Amino acid sequence: MKNYIFLFLFLFGVSVHAQIEKVEPPFWWSGMNRSEIQLMFYGKNIAEYSVSTPSEMIVSNVRKTENPNYLFVTVQTEGLKPATYNIRLSKKGKKSMSYPFELKQREPGSALREGFDASDAIYLIMPDRFANANPANDSHPQLQEKGDRSNPGGRHGGDIEGIIQNLDYLEDLGVTAIWSTPLLEDDDPAYSYHTYAQSDVYKVDPRYGTNEDYRRLATEMEKRDMKLIMDYVTNHWGAEHWMIKDLPTYDWVHQFPGYKNSNYRMTTQFDPHSSKVDTQLNENGWFTSTMPDLNQSNPLVLNYLIQNAIWWIEYSGLDGFRVDTYSYNEKEGIAKWTKAVMDEYPNFNIVGEVWMHDQAQISYWQKDSPVGAIQSFNSHLPAVMDFTLHDAIMVMFNEDDQSWADGMVRAYDNFANDFLYSDIYNLLVFAGNHDTNRINEEFDGDVNKYKLAMTLILTTRGIPQLYYGDEIGMRGDKPAKGDADIRRDFPGGWAGDEQNAFTEAGRTQQQNEYHAFTKKLLNYRKNNEVLHTGRLLQYAPLENVYVYFRYNENDRVMVVINNNPEAQSLDLSRFAEGLAGAVSGKEIISGAQVSLDQNLEVSGKSSLVIELD
Amino acid sequence: MKNYIFLFLFLFGVSVHAQIEKVEPPFWWSGMNRSEIQLMFYGKNIAEYSVSTPSEMIVSNVRKTENPNYLFVTVQTEGLKPATYNIRLSKKGKKSMSYPFELKQREPGSALREGFDASDAIYLIMPDRFANANPANDSHPQLQEKGDRSNPGGRHGGDIEGIIQNLDYLEDLGVTAIWSTPLLEDDDPAYSYHTYAQSDVYKVDPRYGTNEDYRRLATEMEKRDMKLIMDYVTNHWGAEHWMIKDLPTYDWVHQFPGYKNSNYRMTTQFDPHSSKVDTQLNENGWFTSTMPDLNQSNPLVLNYLIQNAIWWIEYSGLDGFRVDTYSYNEKEGIAKWTKAVMDEYPNFNIVGEVWMHDQAQISYWQKDSPVGAIQSFNSHLPAVMDFTLHDAIMVMFNEDDQSWADGMVRAYDNFANDFLYSDIYNLLVFAGNHDTNRINEEFDGDVNKYKLAMTLILTTRGIPQLYYGDEIGMRGDKPAKGDADIRRDFPGGWAGDEQNAFTEAGRTQQQNEYHAFTKKLLNYRKNNEVLHTGRLLQYAPLENVYVYFRYNENDRVMVVINNNPEAQSLDLSRFAEGLAGAVSGKEIISGAQVSLDQNLEVSGKSSLVIELD
Repeated sequence: MKNYIFLFLFLFGVSVHAQIEKVEPPFWWSGMNRSEIQLMFYGKNIAEYSVSTPSEMIVSNVRKTENPNYLFVTVQTEGLKPATYNIRLSKKGKKSMSYPFELKQREPGSALREGFDASDAIYLIMPDRFANANPANDSHPQLQEKGDRSNPGGRHGGDIEGIIQNLDYLEDLGVTAIWSTPLLEDDDPAYSYHTYAQSDVYKVDPRYGTNEDYRRLATEMEKRDMKLIMDYVTNHWGAEHWMIKDLPTYDWVHQFPGYKNSNYRMTTQFDPHSSKVDTQLNENGWFTSTMPDLNQSNPLVLNYLIQNAIWWIEYSGLDGFRVDTYSYNEKEGIAKWTKAVMDEYPNFNIVGEVWMHDQAQISYWQKDSPVGAIQSFNSHLPAVMDFTLHDAIMVMFNEDDQSWADGMVRAYDNFANDFLYSDIYNLLVFAGNHDTNRINEEFDGDVNKYKLAMTLILTTRGIPQLYYGDEIGMRGDKPAKGDADIRRDFPGGWAGDEQNAFTEAGRTQQQNEYHAFTKKLLNYRKNNEVLHTGRLLQYAPLENVYVYFRYNENDRVMVVINNNPEAQSLDLSRFAEGLAGAVSGKEIISGAQVSLDQNLEVSGKSSLVIELD
Repeated sequence: MKNYIFLFLFLFGVSVHAQIEKVEPPFWWSGMNRSEIQLMFYGKNIAEYSVSTPSEMIVSNVRKTENPNYLFVTVQTEGLKPATYNIRLSKKGKKSMSYPFELKQREPGSALREGFDASDAIYLIMPDRFANANPANDSHPQLQEKGDRSNPGGRHGGDIEGIIQNLDYLEDLGVTAIWSTPLLEDDDPAYSYHTYAQSDVYKVDPRYGTNEDYRRLATEMEKRDMKLIMDYVTNHWGAEHWMIKDLPTYDWVHQFPGYKNSNYRMTTQFDPHSSKVDTQLNENGWFTSTMPDLNQSNPLVLNYLIQNAIWWIEYSGLDGFRVDTYSYNEKEGIAKWTKAVMDEYPNFNIVGEVWMHDQAQISYWQKDSPVGAIQSFNSHLPAVMDFTLHDAIMVMFNEDDQSWADGMVRAYDNFANDFLYSDIYNLLVFAGNHDTNRINEEFDGDVNKYKLAMTLILTTRGIPQLYYGDEIGMRGDKPAKGDADIRRDFPGGWAGDEQNAFTEAGRTQQQNEYHAFTKKLLNYRKNNEVLHTGRLLQYAPLENVYVYFRYNENDRVMVVINNNPEAQSLDLSRFAEGLAGAVSGKEIISGAQVSLDQNLEVSGKSSLVIELD
């Protein structure tokens, strides 16, 4: 950690080597698949220096840019043993400087780590809003925005330690993975709590903790057989990023010249008729004025992002990435980034935010997509988000009557298009996230509707993802009150909170009803492979009742979602193919034995999950 | 026509050959690509007879079914000259019978006939509702439903002669092709005017005219360089079909056993999760109880339909088919039918009714579709209908304000998915047909909205199709009053009609406004190849103004659709790519010269079609 000490010394104004202000990545590992590493040296006029390395370390490239404060030095790492290699920068008449570049020993099995998959259930946390275990770090002297829990859009103080202290809660709930929204430093003066406008991508924001804390989170999760997913942002940095304030190259970010906002027309990525100006505006326009858009067609930028991503996987022991605004990136650039990460970790998983409302368009962005292939495009992105299912969930449970295309037909129709995807088991299925309205708001607090949504999410194909607080019925009205309202603090995460929803005793009766149902299904799902990898067989909904089966060679689960307020009596003869001869089963939610040789009764607005005998 | 005389004699009860009641096809042609023809002999116990032919005609197969009244005789026609060949049926102790089977001479160029394409504009007619030139044929003694113009859902008397007499009107309007809803005999006791429940597929319904009349229509159209498209129904016949009343085989139609209605869930055709029972119900369930569903997996049925289709092309000189309920057919069966027809006429065109609301799903059914290819499916169907564009047209012109995804963005978004299609120039674009609500009803009689819709239909990529009467502002409210209301009689088609909208003098001022606009654009389109085969370049709509270009090496047309009620001033610098240096052009609708070196002004709810200089 020598380099970190060095960095901190610099940050606090006591620079030992005045001119090497930063080296990124600060260290690396021996035995990586990539055969070289490009080190970025930063310091005043550092480009004037020449580079020398120990004889066993070969410099394959030294690249200067128009900004003399940067020097990009590529060294070959293939075959180099774990050790510290002194890299020397020298200039006639100046005192030479050196950087102790460490190649660390990799953790065993690192390269072949298994990413999250359909055997997991992911819990999405906004760390500022989950639990504040360390009130001392709510503000930080060097960072602009201070803690202010009275401001809905301000920093509330949640931190990594807060997550760690509640891992038992999450394990008990039955989730197996955490996706936390970004934790790296975001020095924006306002709204930094969402942390998508990062100012230093090699450092955890001190208001959340330290890099070591993040690594400890991963370690603590691993002990519980849980997986950690980092929210990675390739498309943009924050305007406060130190490199944005001293750009290595003019084209490090997209400039038009002058500022242009993205038109957000993501369809230009494949529209065969799109004007160049629209295509460029989508890709290269900025997401907002506080988020400079990175130019991934600049090889220095692309490589910086690739190395940074790999650094975090290797450093903190990640099990996956969620990539923000995936389809706003430059198409070829993001594909190269994704491929590079997956080449390093072939069993890793990455899910991209591809927020579109059409399955073909979502599929386009998935690895080996037959739709992407139409335009010879392959993103190499293993997983995408089932936003069309989310669209359906947001409305269908409020539709009591089924007409031709609504009610449960929306779910049925969604899955009918599954043939468009290259890998349906790598679709994230979810009833909400930090950008969508709270599902319990959409359901106006009707727990029965929540149960139907959870039944669907937790038993259909794909990787279920829950949003923190949904499991206790948390509400929040984004259309009326904005983002902050769907990102309220989890009750009990702050000392002195009126209630503590992390414990059964602390939850209201109603919260416990939400919680118990979620926990029951999550824990059933956790140990039932048929719900992870089993095939799906679905029946066209009748009377707003949707019936489907998950099955493999050994097991079968029948799911009945009655979205009709009236009780229904199902003639089971129609489901012979799914039942495959079964005449009885165990209903998981109630624990009751169910006979399947006569009509099946299902109450209004309720579901059954039946493990067939 | 010997065989027809024979048939008529039979129909009127004076049978010459008592036991050969029908032979289908009644005649065929020499020199077809298909090397053989399967003749279906029908007569009481005809299966007991043996078959002999002249020595030059080789019988390759004689097939009997469980119904002794049918005999399927396959003869080789390859190399046979045009002539009449006597086919002899004989049985010990019975008088032998013979059928004079004629192989006719083909018309020159028949095999390589060019079907309709994007250089055409199609006019859809419901013949019973268009023009009644021959009131004497409104009823027919042998057919159940009689003419009754007072019944909105009854037969009103329109006929083929009525179409022929108004070809000048259509030619003047600027359309180049007619798709008429079916004209073959439909002996249903009610609603036979739609004629989709046919009772004899080798015969034009005498209430419309004769087979010869239909051929004369084609000839008259050809003189005007217009094309005739037949509405072909492969999926079902009417319950009154003579073969349905004496089924050749039990499985000639789908039986479950017992009656089952289709579930209309067309997505089961590709849904990888669909239960077998749903898939089967969609394909094999009946469209309605009066429309027995043909079993195309029975080779006798499939071959009958293929031969019948080819017979009509060759006999009447067709330029295309529109195929009804294409995606309700058995998938493999309809693909074989389509391929067989296209193999015989490689430059022919067929457009299938694939009424889905998702481009990937529509594309699935187009020949060489990259989407169909995902499941190794190839329909061989050259053209499909752009139903998603129709969905957009039905709502967007009523949306004065553009938000993220509505207003003109609906059109823009539709075309963004064009990469999913194998051939975007073979998409039928339309603002309505005989099954959808009248567009002028949706627009509540606002001629400006109609003009916007027509501008789009007639200048975007694909084959435009108009629905009779739209060009005079005809209304009709399907949701409120049912199908008959969108199929009202064309004013002036009946002697004694209050007005005659076929003439300028007969039309009201408002009707003339609709008509003149439509005529202007249709006639402009007719002679401008760039609107037929030119590429499309589109710009993301701003302020509800949609701008696009059609272009090829020689010509460029700029289209501006201002769907905003307010006038807009467009900064043309954004459109540099489309303008390609042009600084002026001619606006087609007004005929005015337009300067393009400054802002372009466009009135509220209006369009510009500018041929660039």
